Amino acid sequence: MERRRSVYLDHAATTPVRPEVARAMLPYFSERFGNPSSLYALAREAKGAVEEVRDRVAAAIGASPEEVFFTAGGTEADNWAIKGVAAANRRKGDHIVTSAIEHHAVLHPCRALEKQGYRVTYLPVDEFGRVEPERVEEAITDKTILVSVMAANNEVGTIQPVAAIAKIARDRGVPFHTDAVQAIGAFPVDVERMGADLLALSAHKFGGPKGVGALYIRRGTRVGTFMDGGAQERGRRAGTENVPGIVGMGKAIEIAVAEMPQKSVWLAATRDKLIRGILDSIPDTRLNGHPTERLPNNVNVAFRYVEGESILLMLDALGIAASTGSACTSASLEPSHVLTACGLPPEHAHGSLRLTLGSRNTGEDVDYVLEVLPQVIGRLREISPLGGGM
Amino acid sequence: MERRRSVYLDHAATTPVRPEVARAMLPYFSERFGNPSSLYALAREAKGAVEEVRDRVAAAIGASPEEVFFTAGGTEADNWAIKGVAAANRRKGDHIVTSAIEHHAVLHPCRALEKQGYRVTYLPVDEFGRVEPERVEEAITDKTILVSVMAANNEVGTIQPVAAIAKIARDRGVPFHTDAVQAIGAFPVDVERMGADLLALSAHKFGGPKGVGALYIRRGTRVGTFMDGGAQERGRRAGTENVPGIVGMGKAIEIAVAEMPQKSVWLAATRDKLIRGILDSIPDTRLNGHPTERLPNNVNVAFRYVEGESILLMLDALGIAASTGSACTSASLEPSHVLTACGLPPEHAHGSLRLTLGSRNTGEDVDYVLEVLPQVIGRLREISPLGGGM
Repeated sequence: MERRRSVYLDHAATTPVRPEVARAMLPYFSERFGNPSSLYALAREAKGAVEEVRDRVAAAIGASPEEVFFTAGGTEADNWAIKGVAAANRRKGDHIVTSAIEHHAVLHPCRALEKQGYRVTYLPVDEFGRVEPERVEEAITDKTILVSVMAANNEVGTIQPVAAIAKIARDRGVPFHTDAVQAIGAFPVDVERMGADLLALSAHKFGGPKGVGALYIRRGTRVGTFMDGGAQERGRRAGTENVPGIVGMGKAIEIAVAEMPQKSVWLAATRDKLIRGILDSIPDTRLNGHPTERLPNNVNVAFRYVEGESILLMLDALGIAASTGSACTSASLEPSHVLTACGLPPEHAHGSLRLTLGSRNTGEDVDYVLEVLPQVIGRLREISPLGGGM
Repeated sequence: MERRRSVYLDHAATTPVRPEVARAMLPYFSERFGNPSSLYALAREAKGAVEEVRDRVAAAIGASPEEVFFTAGGTEADNWAIKGVAAANRRKGDHIVTSAIEHHAVLHPCRALEKQGYRVTYLPVDEFGRVEPERVEEAITDKTILVSVMAANNEVGTIQPVAAIAKIARDRGVPFHTDAVQAIGAFPVDVERMGADLLALSAHKFGGPKGVGALYIRRGTRVGTFMDGGAQERGRRAGTENVPGIVGMGKAIEIAVAEMPQKSVWLAATRDKLIRGILDSIPDTRLNGHPTERLPNNVNVAFRYVEGESILLMLDALGIAASTGSACTSASLEPSHVLTACGLPPEHAHGSLRLTLGSRNTGEDVDYVLEVLPQVIGRLREISPLGGGM
């Protein structure tokens, strides 16, 4: 097997910046470089660009511009939402409800809060990675100050019933946060329909640059500051605005939302072709995540008798970029907390592969994967100490 | 008076990205766009670029690469240093020593900690904006867990005796943090000579892009995490690395440090020409900050009988971009906390102007300012309700 193509199938980890996005950003580095907080023409130009993106992001998620706050990415948005709500509502309560399969950008802030005396309920999920809304109902107490459940899972792609969960939380007077980092461009994200009081975005997941994101905060939601300092973002998020990054995010979200209806159909069809092709041609394989309620670009399969990392290495040699789960935990040797929470049988737990499609992928990419993957798995199983020996 | 030139004199607020910096960043948007945490060629390329910059930043400040952590900017670096040390040393003590003239990125985290029960001493400064090291000695108690004094002030340009302050702190077993955001490219920044245990940097202040910075953490310094989530930055700062931004910071710090010896001499001479020219031609004017221990690019003067904002508006109409103080507080109408702490006479407090030079400025820029500024101040004083009526 030799490398014949270069196929990027890790769009859940990051996406290339679209050329038109990079073009939009460029002038803001060296020409329109003003600090938006200053008081002269160059600064007003930068400030105007930032506010235009605020309008655009707000329009993309059904919010008002004054409810959109720019951050350095999805992780900061999640940290701010969780720690900010916790700090601002300490007198009201000390209990947070989230799910066991959240991204670490949600789970680790929750753990940090536990060390400070807060209590956190990590809701279980079913075998497909879904949180049952009834579990949220059961978990909420009169000390609950936040419910946080992601819109769609980054590893197995499962889409959560956030509207139902949000309704339960808000009927009990508890604000609802959702990490929508994987959702933009995949399905409609609307803070009203979702019932979100807080919602986290990350530009580099939808064709924008790394290092910029946003937190939606519904008017009236009590949230403390996370980044303290200057008076930027109406005093709620300090630090000089990343103007080129924000401009890039604006362009990217505009394109992602406009293309979504058509693109998501193609992605879902291609995803299903990949899933069927893999399951049909490779025995002892199972699909992780939900069979239908899943991100249109997410394929996550578990192969018995092989190690995920070995699959990645062989695929890399063949020019295919893939993942075993989350890029953010790839340095860890522990099995994925998401797969564990889904109750993946131990014999499958270590042999998972995530392939996530994007705009630049083609039908030929899929054909190539379906051609080489059975050979890769076959060869690994031949040499596997885990058994199989096919 | 009509606009004849375009003169940017607000380099303390932000600097244009140098063309060679933008060129270095570009490939990392759309081609080398990999997530450094992933496990394939594209990711290793991104990871390699990030680690190369870590080496470069470390070399620029006399640190080891494993002591350099990338952040979203100076504000995050300061927030992390202060809140991280506070959280990690809560059992040891609850007292922080800082100065009254720190940037808000230091002061506001301190205020946030006060709300959590920490105690903070805000050291006074002399009329030139200097912290006397003896005051640090007097302020430290056995409950002190951090001393934080900036390397150089962003408004009045005063350079602090950080080495002496650091020695006092560290002799008492207290870690020392310094906000060095204004220092890179202005004078040698060396964590050993400065005695810094923590040091904050911001790329856009020295020709790099907005949205990226770094925190130096000396090996062995107890600092909690601030941004919780994925395992990036060896588990100490979560969030997908801003690869293009980091690459830009690396190129910018390399150039800034290399050019500093020569450039700072030119800047200081030009600064002094500006200061002398203004003081000689405009009566009832005083220099803010230290006469000699000041940033080579900083001019800060106070004019009686005029409003700083009115000066800015007229200068803007003449094509000159300047500031009354910090860009980060320009939305505020309160007098600068720095000028107040320096004991600026009330009759001068509202008429301050900061001009901060940069590489692209020329002698003609200075001549232009010296030509038009006396006219601007003269006209404002003619119409001023504050008196003067010259």
